[in-house]
Amino acid sequence: MLAEFDLIRRYLMPSQKRLATDGVALGSGDDAALLIPQAGHQLAVSVDTSVVNVHFPHDAPSFAIGHRALAVALSDLAAMGADARWCFMALTLDQRTFNDDAAIHLWMDGFGQGFHGLCQRHAATLAGGDVTAGELAIGVTVMGELPAGRALTRGGARPGDVIAVTGELGGGAGGLALWKRGERDLEHPLLRRYLLPEPRLAAGVALLGLASAAMDISDGLLADLGHLREASGVGAILDKEALPLAEGLESALGRDDAQQAALSGGDDYELLVTLAPGDVAHAQQRLNEQGLALTVIGQCTEALGVQGIAPDHHAGWQHFNEGTP
Amino acid sequence: MLAEFDLIRRYLMPSQKRLATDGVALGSGDDAALLIPQAGHQLAVSVDTSVVNVHFPHDAPSFAIGHRALAVALSDLAAMGADARWCFMALTLDQRTFNDDAAIHLWMDGFGQGFHGLCQRHAATLAGGDVTAGELAIGVTVMGELPAGRALTRGGARPGDVIAVTGELGGGAGGLALWKRGERDLEHPLLRRYLLPEPRLAAGVALLGLASAAMDISDGLLADLGHLREASGVGAILDKEALPLAEGLESALGRDDAQQAALSGGDDYELLVTLAPGDVAHAQQRLNEQGLALTVIGQCTEALGVQGIAPDHHAGWQHFNEGTP
Repeated sequence: MLAEFDLIRRYLMPSQKRLATDGVALGSGDDAALLIPQAGHQLAVSVDTSVVNVHFPHDAPSFAIGHRALAVALSDLAAMGADARWCFMALTLDQRTFNDDAAIHLWMDGFGQGFHGLCQRHAATLAGGDVTAGELAIGVTVMGELPAGRALTRGGARPGDVIAVTGELGGGAGGLALWKRGERDLEHPLLRRYLLPEPRLAAGVALLGLASAAMDISDGLLADLGHLREASGVGAILDKEALPLAEGLESALGRDDAQQAALSGGDDYELLVTLAPGDVAHAQQRLNEQGLALTVIGQCTEALGVQGIAPDHHAGWQHFNEGTP
Repeated sequence: MLAEFDLIRRYLMPSQKRLATDGVALGSGDDAALLIPQAGHQLAVSVDTSVVNVHFPHDAPSFAIGHRALAVALSDLAAMGADARWCFMALTLDQRTFNDDAAIHLWMDGFGQGFHGLCQRHAATLAGGDVTAGELAIGVTVMGELPAGRALTRGGARPGDVIAVTGELGGGAGGLALWKRGERDLEHPLLRRYLLPEPRLAAGVALLGLASAAMDISDGLLADLGHLREASGVGAILDKEALPLAEGLESALGRDDAQQAALSGGDDYELLVTLAPGDVAHAQQRLNEQGLALTVIGQCTEALGVQGIAPDHHAGWQHFNEGTP
């Protein structure tokens, strides 16, 4: 195995010069990184592990694996309305799956590009890492900041609030279905949704002070709405026809499966938010300025449970590891 | 598989009431934890992954696995002189290795006890976690705080500084050797050193303002001294006879192998520090008050390289996964 520090420094760490401007007093190479938090802010912290053949196919391009592992973690910061600041990576690499050191370098080069491209777009700095031998897995810890007391949580929805989602739904499940059918063109919009999701960080920040509750859609709309309903103590009525289906989803899966993917498919990484009716137009305007749609799909109710959706739609979507990759 | 959130809440998370007093504005159950950093402080952050059969034997007690995964991460904070504040766990569990749900609960119960016992002793709060399916691995992110600009780094050693280590050396490698021979009594001092190391957090804090450089000994004294020498631009002369051998090490391995374990064995998690000669007595007094020895084992030199040790001792110690568990 190549030396851990060499792999980290070559492919993962930005230069120390860059770090100095990013609130990093001391980066990789010592026992711990030293970070400089902003006064008056809270830290939003989340950890996510992506495991081969559970969260992504073993033969996915390493660029996509690096991008996706970070994207799903950053999505949690987006759901709080936090600005991304720093991230840490715990990479577990299985050297037995590589023919030689050159193959490791090639894989790491793509992986690092996917990871860093996303870091740069969201001003997140990789401030430390760890490389270990074992089954391929990427543990990512993300740290963001937001003004104290302003975070978007899951518990603030009130009866009468509107339910809305950013972007499009069902693309994660649709892309997975296409991958299983052998589609490998990363330019295909559904495959992009599945392998290269874009965390909605700017949208989360734009919704601070407008949304009454927010979370990201990782387990599927209905499952995640269930978490939000439980935390807020509300029910929901959904308008199935209003769901914004991902581009190409209906032609790939047919109308019924497309709706099912939008309701129960995971891996969309859009934001699910609730808003007072009077704040919807303002929120839509802010997100439209980012080129992102905010679609009203229902309303919070006092009566618990979900109305407007047949109970058979509540079944979970097939996970990657439950089918034949 | 049991529901992720159930496992996290039952075995890993402290009560929300406890969290409120620990600088945690929002704990598990939302998209991210919200932490309240202290003004005027820097954050020390480190990530460590412990993988089954690489970092610990698959049949180690889950209590020890939980303790050890956190201990090796906290040890990095100790080496900076930071106070432990928060930690996050990314647990990957292989359900195929359990006969039934009851076996998972039994394992998790021991694991949680080992993890939380150490959290409590060092006032660290588990503020979030993630449970995933895959090969058993524990990723731990630890976050500590220390007054801005006061951290102990690896780069501050100067020629003439004394080299010293806390506690005892070689116990990690000695305990591993005993484990391979079939020893399973966790009360054996060497097995305790290997499976239940105690991170030197209080010692690190006590050395702030006294030590010129510090790091923890995880790869073995000579390897880690190499990192410190490189970061500081100094050489070293070591007194092999001065090495504080772990209790029972010489009788278990013989004199030569005991010294080799102290020089090149990993997993000791003691602190390696350098100090101006005039600060040694003061530092020893502070650590003695904690019941911990600080033993002078050499001195920093202008001439690079290491003197006092035969070159054949520089070979690395056998790792767990290189032998037959």
